[in-house]
Amino acid sequence: MVKQRVAFQGERGAYSEMAALQYFSNAELVPVRSFQEVFDIVEAGKVNFAVVPIENSIEGSISETYDLLFITNMLVSGEIYQRIRHCLITNKHASSTIKLAYSHPQALGQCRSYLQTKGLEPVPTYDTAGAVKLIKEKQLMEGAAIASKRAAEIYEMEILEEGIEDKKNNFTRFLVLSKNETKPTNNDRTSIIFSVKHIPGALSSILEEFAHRQINLTKIESRPTKETLWEYNFFVDLEGHATDENIAHALQLVKRKSAFFKILGSYKKAELY
Amino acid sequence: MVKQRVAFQGERGAYSEMAALQYFSNAELVPVRSFQEVFDIVEAGKVNFAVVPIENSIEGSISETYDLLFITNMLVSGEIYQRIRHCLITNKHASSTIKLAYSHPQALGQCRSYLQTKGLEPVPTYDTAGAVKLIKEKQLMEGAAIASKRAAEIYEMEILEEGIEDKKNNFTRFLVLSKNETKPTNNDRTSIIFSVKHIPGALSSILEEFAHRQINLTKIESRPTKETLWEYNFFVDLEGHATDENIAHALQLVKRKSAFFKILGSYKKAELY
Repeated sequence: MVKQRVAFQGERGAYSEMAALQYFSNAELVPVRSFQEVFDIVEAGKVNFAVVPIENSIEGSISETYDLLFITNMLVSGEIYQRIRHCLITNKHASSTIKLAYSHPQALGQCRSYLQTKGLEPVPTYDTAGAVKLIKEKQLMEGAAIASKRAAEIYEMEILEEGIEDKKNNFTRFLVLSKNETKPTNNDRTSIIFSVKHIPGALSSILEEFAHRQINLTKIESRPTKETLWEYNFFVDLEGHATDENIAHALQLVKRKSAFFKILGSYKKAELY
Repeated sequence: MVKQRVAFQGERGAYSEMAALQYFSNAELVPVRSFQEVFDIVEAGKVNFAVVPIENSIEGSISETYDLLFITNMLVSGEIYQRIRHCLITNKHASSTIKLAYSHPQALGQCRSYLQTKGLEPVPTYDTAGAVKLIKEKQLMEGAAIASKRAAEIYEMEILEEGIEDKKNNFTRFLVLSKNETKPTNNDRTSIIFSVKHIPGALSSILEEFAHRQINLTKIESRPTKETLWEYNFFVDLEGHATDENIAHALQLVKRKSAFFKILGSYKKAELY
């Protein structure tokens, strides 16, 4: 049987790769430098799936992913919750006086108090696992990287401390992207995007279609359209499958009331742990 | 008459200072290093007002401001729209081969295409005007800063090019913070924060209170509570004053249905341009 190919952003050992491994037990994982490239290679059919972060329980939504979901034609076919547990990682035989901490700005933000306490100066890099690769390749002996335990193992580096994130309930929700629709499982979530027409109460009127049908909204995110000032695309997650009768009817009416409307997909809800 | 004291984040010449000057024609402007400190000195009564960015028309919401509005007791007493027009700024007699562009990550993001076209490598700093100060103080002759025209003038630097932002409809909305409530002007906006109870349809049920009273919602933003996984605080802007009968009634019912509820304030809507 041919292995599925699954793209993720970052270097080997990235949290995205860990999320992908959790969901696809036997796939070929393809590391890609940017989110844009991740979307591009799914679109071009070079991989079957991609796994991208959509929100973190502490830092909030990942804007770039939302913006790419709007401008591309990707479908969402699954979701994954990945615990984020950061390690302080150094070269073997590193200096005893570490001064700098290299990592992605989100990871640096999630360890802010820890870094202050230890007197480490944060240095932003484009990726957590990439920071490990960087301090290894450049043999930076006065710098540490903040990344996953897996990244330390892959690059055969020293773990000085585990679990250095300031808040322990630190999880990232990832979406699985593909070009395929998925069948109902009776425990689904549906993601949609819409923008509203230029009439007073337009947003309220759309949300009312969900409210009075008791459709549970689990997330609302707004992103600027970037075309017209102070107009937004709304990204809504709701419980149920787009083919459920109640939901299909609501979506039909929402579409009619929207200036722009797109169903990103319905997919099985992930377990919370 | 004693001058009002108004705090803003960043160095002199920051867009926040320009927004403050637009709103307060004759105030003493107080530059402060971080957003946290801006909130702190209003709270402590050391200044009368503060001006903080809340959202940009291209990059979206400023999460840190939202999070501080939640945890502090600040009231919103006004809003300002400030056009963002970036300049490429250098030292006088700088090298003819500029290689690096220093600025705040948001400004660098807003000039991404320009920087790529010109082959300039972005270098993040904590502030736009601060980047001008940096290249001046360190006499960096192969680096430019991205900041406002005003920042170039204040630090007596050279403007190589004006209006280098990728999208011209680039505006930032600022909030005016204080400890005072404001009176209705008949052209107001109200900002509230709430979180929902643990029952299905809780969010829809709250939004319905606005929908069926034809109260126009102009923005919904969600931020993680950071305490319970995948639970959010919702920041809603709506048209009207909290003392308007229709709105006062809706807010009373919303409060009853919320787990957490707070009115940030009602304030005169800014002109859109």
